[in-house]
Amino acid sequence: MPWTKKDLLGLEKLTAEEITIILDTAKAFSQIATRSIKKVPALQGKTVVNLFFEPSTRTRVSFEVAEKRLSADIVNVNIAASSVTKGETLLDTVKNLCAYRIDAIVVRHSCAGVPHYLAENIEPSIVNAGDGMHEHPTQALLDIYTLREKFGDLKGLKVAIVGDISHSRVARSNIWGLQKLGAKVTVVGPSTLMPREIEKMGEGVEVSYDLPATLKKVDAVNMLRIQREREQQVQFPSLREYARYFGLSTKLIDQTPESLIVMHPGPINRGVELSGTVADGPRSVILQQVTNGLAVRMAVLFLVTGGTKISEE
Amino acid sequence: MPWTKKDLLGLEKLTAEEITIILDTAKAFSQIATRSIKKVPALQGKTVVNLFFEPSTRTRVSFEVAEKRLSADIVNVNIAASSVTKGETLLDTVKNLCAYRIDAIVVRHSCAGVPHYLAENIEPSIVNAGDGMHEHPTQALLDIYTLREKFGDLKGLKVAIVGDISHSRVARSNIWGLQKLGAKVTVVGPSTLMPREIEKMGEGVEVSYDLPATLKKVDAVNMLRIQREREQQVQFPSLREYARYFGLSTKLIDQTPESLIVMHPGPINRGVELSGTVADGPRSVILQQVTNGLAVRMAVLFLVTGGTKISEE
Amino acid sequence: MPWTKKDLLGLEKLTAEEITIILDTAKAFSQIATRSIKKVPALQGKTVVNLFFEPSTRTRVSFEVAEKRLSADIVNVNIAASSVTKGETLLDTVKNLCAYRIDAIVVRHSCAGVPHYLAENIEPSIVNAGDGMHEHPTQALLDIYTLREKFGDLKGLKVAIVGDISHSRVARSNIWGLQKLGAKVTVVGPSTLMPREIEKMGEGVEVSYDLPATLKKVDAVNMLRIQREREQQVQFPSLREYARYFGLSTKLIDQTPESLIVMHPGPINRGVELSGTVADGPRSVILQQVTNGLAVRMAVLFLVTGGTKISEE
Repeated sequence: MPWTKKDLLGLEKLTAEEITIILDTAKAFSQIATRSIKKVPALQGKTVVNLFFEPSTRTRVSFEVAEKRLSADIVNVNIAASSVTKGETLLDTVKNLCAYRIDAIVVRHSCAGVPHYLAENIEPSIVNAGDGMHEHPTQALLDIYTLREKFGDLKGLKVAIVGDISHSRVARSNIWGLQKLGAKVTVVGPSTLMPREIEKMGEGVEVSYDLPATLKKVDAVNMLRIQREREQQVQFPSLREYARYFGLSTKLIDQTPESLIVMHPGPINRGVELSGTVADGPRSVILQQVTNGLAVRMAVLFLVTGGTKISEE
Repeated sequence: MPWTKKDLLGLEKLTAEEITIILDTAKAFSQIATRSIKKVPALQGKTVVNLFFEPSTRTRVSFEVAEKRLSADIVNVNIAASSVTKGETLLDTVKNLCAYRIDAIVVRHSCAGVPHYLAENIEPSIVNAGDGMHEHPTQALLDIYTLREKFGDLKGLKVAIVGDISHSRVARSNIWGLQKLGAKVTVVGPSTLMPREIEKMGEGVEVSYDLPATLKKVDAVNMLRIQREREQQVQFPSLREYARYFGLSTKLIDQTPESLIVMHPGPINRGVELSGTVADGPRSVILQQVTNGLAVRMAVLFLVTGGTKISEE
Repeated sequence: MPWTKKDLLGLEKLTAEEITIILDTAKAFSQIATRSIKKVPALQGKTVVNLFFEPSTRTRVSFEVAEKRLSADIVNVNIAASSVTKGETLLDTVKNLCAYRIDAIVVRHSCAGVPHYLAENIEPSIVNAGDGMHEHPTQALLDIYTLREKFGDLKGLKVAIVGDISHSRVARSNIWGLQKLGAKVTVVGPSTLMPREIEKMGEGVEVSYDLPATLKKVDAVNMLRIQREREQQVQFPSLREYARYFGLSTKLIDQTPESLIVMHPGPINRGVELSGTVADGPRSVILQQVTNGLAVRMAVLFLVTGGTKISEE
């Protein structure tokens, strides 16, 4: 089955087959980073705009490296210093970019739904690089890619996602994607940071407030990043208290099955979500996730812009 | 006749023949955006610096895409974070760039005359991307290109330019360019925003304070952007009052000849200079202007750096 | 003898032979800027990250042009808007970049030793683009390149370095590099800006507080940039007083041997370190230094990433 979608907006609306096409394509692209010439002409002569309405180094750099390795022409538009502040509407800004006959826009925005709105109104492909608290599909895809790399088939795999589930687009995309591929998800966190209707996200989702107990039963744990800025807020425990109940300490990891792997979307708050020893330890696949993110983003950009076969050049 | 100038500083000093060379070259380049590989090797191995002393997204992105499609090597220098703030003179900053044997500098500066001053003192080509309230030649060229695309020959064509004529480098460049090609220009705006000596800009320039009457007599209208920041200033009416007398409403457009086309240099203040319905309506060529801007900027960069024949590759 | 080091961290630990390899390679690269296609495929398919924790236009642009002329893929990471501010450690930030299998990082940081720390902990090559008050090796290499271009062999050459020696990484790298190649260095400046143990930097280093006397005895003078921000500080004389005793005025230059050449790392404070007439005069090699900086940086990037022979293409 070939890929048919113009955009990658989220995992909620993708089928298991579509997710698998992306993962398989990423697998093929993962070889490129190991060559001495780390580049293919797949997107040569195509123009990709990275349109970031929220500051981001990690995700922007990951997409930018992916685009360069695909030989695309790239324009970065950081919207802090842009026309939006001059009263122009979002759609006018984007339609202007489209007037250059660009091929794809990678967009990050603090409002949920922006990529979907754009995708309906413009011709170029839209890749969602994070929209509000809604989805961050390429992050979830690289998480899933990493799990598949470690465990093969995801059917029946048990994954815990730990942290501020309420505000996390990473959690949301992971929950949708993992379930579609047959994995079971346990979300863990303080009750104040647990969305009320979380279990409605699917039969494969369980809630737990007990991290040590959960860790004994799962194959992988994804420790979400805590936004330190939230510490001021009422529903949030102190960082120290958070770390005590929901952080992955060296002591705690020693009580888990040896096969458990530890993931984190980065950037890490060492000593909050997990101890430095755990982050750098043998269970951690955190840097492997980053490497896989590059292959996944190359695959997504390749597929949405109409690529079907990976060049052997 | 071949192009002979090292720089593009403004339209005031160009001949009709020179403007026509740019427009014809742009026509040839306009095809590139429709190809699957949107790129020619015309500026391969040449270095272009985008030197912006004023923040700009639209114009910078348009030049950047143009440069990439010409295969140039590009360096963006945003001067907010630059040496100028360290007490270095403008000329020292630019001479340093020239020491790398760069081929062209695209410069935007809030002071009129900066591109001319640089052009006299350095070897690389200078392209003026807007100097103070003086000229914005590539904007006027894309406006003229769009008019030529719609109407063919510009001789005798009637064009209205509406808005804050006093502070507009777009108006100034358009007035010079349009007259050279034989068009008649009517400038329309509040008397407080009309430069005193405007009629001295040429025999082809008329002043009007009555937008509805003017619109019945012209072939095209170019609605200038209002700088919202000016609302605080004494000589400026309120935005609401401005829109009432000099904005292009849906009602007003219906009273004009059907052949009238509507232009705007962007970014649009919907509901101020023109209504959203007009901006998106069948008379509007606003996005076509953006597309044409790319071809015009490719042509200008190609010509000033010594290009004569467009590669067919 | 071939180049064997993975990194360029400073001149202190390089041998005369290693410095000579860089200078010879730079000489070969200097030809590229004079071609019509100013580009070689030496780093094609390699990825270089410019990681700047301090704002910089000049050095960043010089490296960026060098990388583009080597056909590298480039990512700029300006750390003001980055993850470091999100509580991530420096090493985590850099290890994330390394996860993309990048080939080199050009790093500038306000803390001395950062490049050395990174070099020990990561696989890609590190090029030090300035670390605190420690070293700025590519600046010193371009200074030395320029001296060699003018005088041939450096053995016995006499070079004065003038200014705020205490806080200058440029001075430090020059002192180490020049001595290794057999030159004699006289450092000149106010006693409050002279490091106490300066003479311990080598037998080839002398201290002087008398600029006019020193200038009569040397072959070249390198006028360091004064950080205007320091004027507020106690140990710093006023700029006017500084210029009077340690600035290179037109009058003073006329009292020196005609063969004396004047260098400056830029950006220049005209009227402080040297008069505008001197900066633009026949003794000044300041812009030649900038041109040479490009060739030196191309050479360094080429060598540390494993290059041995320069492509003739």
